[in-house]
Amino acid sequence: MRVRVSPPARMTSVHDLATPAAVVDIDALEHNLATMATRLPGALLRPHVKAHKSTALADLQRQHGHRHFTCATVREMIGMARAGLGDDLLLANEVVDVERLRELAALQDQAMITVAVDSDVTVDAAAQAGIRHVLIDVNIGLPRCGCAPSDAGRLADAARRRGLVVRGVMGYEGHLMVSDDRAAQRRETLSAMEVLNRTALDVGGDVISAGGTGNHDVHAEHRADTGVTEVQAGSYALMDTYYGTLGLPFRQALSILGTVVSSHEKWAVADVGLKSLGMDHGNPSIAGCKVWFCSDEHITFATEKVESRAASPVRAASPVRAAQPTVGSRVRVIPAHVDPTMAMHEHLWLVRGDEVLDRWPIDLRGW
Amino acid sequence: MRVRVSPPARMTSVHDLATPAAVVDIDALEHNLATMATRLPGALLRPHVKAHKSTALADLQRQHGHRHFTCATVREMIGMARAGLGDDLLLANEVVDVERLRELAALQDQAMITVAVDSDVTVDAAAQAGIRHVLIDVNIGLPRCGCAPSDAGRLADAARRRGLVVRGVMGYEGHLMVSDDRAAQRRETLSAMEVLNRTALDVGGDVISAGGTGNHDVHAEHRADTGVTEVQAGSYALMDTYYGTLGLPFRQALSILGTVVSSHEKWAVADVGLKSLGMDHGNPSIAGCKVWFCSDEHITFATEKVESRAASPVRAASPVRAAQPTVGSRVRVIPAHVDPTMAMHEHLWLVRGDEVLDRWPIDLRGW
Repeated sequence: MRVRVSPPARMTSVHDLATPAAVVDIDALEHNLATMATRLPGALLRPHVKAHKSTALADLQRQHGHRHFTCATVREMIGMARAGLGDDLLLANEVVDVERLRELAALQDQAMITVAVDSDVTVDAAAQAGIRHVLIDVNIGLPRCGCAPSDAGRLADAARRRGLVVRGVMGYEGHLMVSDDRAAQRRETLSAMEVLNRTALDVGGDVISAGGTGNHDVHAEHRADTGVTEVQAGSYALMDTYYGTLGLPFRQALSILGTVVSSHEKWAVADVGLKSLGMDHGNPSIAGCKVWFCSDEHITFATEKVESRAASPVRAASPVRAAQPTVGSRVRVIPAHVDPTMAMHEHLWLVRGDEVLDRWPIDLRGW
Repeated sequence: MRVRVSPPARMTSVHDLATPAAVVDIDALEHNLATMATRLPGALLRPHVKAHKSTALADLQRQHGHRHFTCATVREMIGMARAGLGDDLLLANEVVDVERLRELAALQDQAMITVAVDSDVTVDAAAQAGIRHVLIDVNIGLPRCGCAPSDAGRLADAARRRGLVVRGVMGYEGHLMVSDDRAAQRRETLSAMEVLNRTALDVGGDVISAGGTGNHDVHAEHRADTGVTEVQAGSYALMDTYYGTLGLPFRQALSILGTVVSSHEKWAVADVGLKSLGMDHGNPSIAGCKVWFCSDEHITFATEKVESRAASPVRAASPVRAAQPTVGSRVRVIPAHVDPTMAMHEHLWLVRGDEVLDRWPIDLRGW
């Protein structure tokens, strides 16, 4: 399957793009979607759109066989439903704002809407708003949302008494996504899933939703043991340097294209600043360079030292710094965290090498 | 001077706001603008709009006497000019994109446009685009943009040969903005300004532009010594926890209002995640609480331990943790860095206590 592209009329090269620009290597994206669709085909994957916030990219995931999606915000849910991607949308997040939930509920005749609940207040808000379907969000180790496993059955009963259909459970083992020790990660994931499966018996329903990009393979390879019916992975589509260290079979597809605006003997500066990069996981990377720091609109970086040829047969080679890139040249900056990076950009440029193939709106930004 | 407000028809309390929401304490904002206008009145301050990206807030700064503004992006420049705030706009940033510069140049009959240059390539781009006025950006210690002081005179001559009016110099001593040792900060600022003043003699023109919120007082109190004609401060208007440690006379005006969506014995979770907060300066703060971590859409935090009353006259008091806030309650999260935080929000809500007085668009986002 190939991405269907409609090249912009005038824009044909990345050198014509105004910067900073979020660009996606279309072959890496295709590789990532195809690889995941092999490992977790169809409904076994419920792609998380928070990682890209683009209905165009979600539609490509649908073309790879995944028709059920995970969302993190009401706006993502509404945008997906309106884009015709509402076969089965899960808001994997607690919302107590009845007005916003009513906006969601109004879409239930055109989309299948399910909302996570983890407390009586969230059950009450969903019921008041006329939401029809919920999942019980269960805490399985990450100190964030999710009710205590021991409270899940009671909460499911309370939800049913309010007329809500309880489709099952979800849990997010976010603390187990990234680990140097993959055996320990597998062991701890299986242990968290044991809790989730036991809780699912108390709750009822047929959905057991969990996981993410970082441990998708544990779920794919040990599905009989993890027992989940679907995995909520998102970052795999575009990737970042944080997940890039894990040896996952996904390629880096996203970079932020910048222009060198100032060049000096020891450093250069490009127009990719921290307002165009998710910074919570630290500095981004530039191939062959060391990133010094990011400012609001700038990244200061330097070429890495490389081995020079020996100056003479009797003098050893010593590393020398390659010349800094010249003003006007282009540089690709790889974000450390894909999700917040995407949330900062209005468009995504689909490229193959230096050729620009399409522009997609990042249309699910905001709340 | 008071902020002129036009209350939204239905929205009267912060409890009615959908969250996360960027809210500004109108009295703190007024205090900050009035305080700065006393220290650096009129054209001595060239407020930097990159810190708030709002023409409405810039207009309030204009009402406080500042009619010249600093911008970081072409979009900020265009937005300010179109909003009628174009008396004297400085793009304090290098741009080599001739197309974007042409968009700016097209506004020169309705706005005074000046662009920073620091290399032959940037001079050439400005001249090609029909830009009329430039400042020579001089490196005074921060490894970022700015030509070497020794090259500034040559560059100014080159610009004049291309028909550009060289209005003077700018330099940004960003490495001196935050210091525990204020005497050292003053000494080093004065030393950097010596370099800038010497360079100004080589360059010509009458503008010497530098400084920021963190050392605005050095410039205000030692103006005869620093020699600058204007200071480019931005963060002072809204502030953040990073600048808040410096003992400056500005109050924290901005917070991100959140709703507690999940509450547990040892922690609570609000819907203010790292997609609504600039994270490059670390975690945000919540008064009376300890922030554990931020996720894309969540902040996990806990109330701090407080002294309990002694259980008996013979047993000493031991600290106990206050109960976590309940689901549905509101919390105000103070960002560590104001500039990128503002760039993530669509609107700014002006509030006094819990009363919502107005909504301003954050209309200068993007590039």
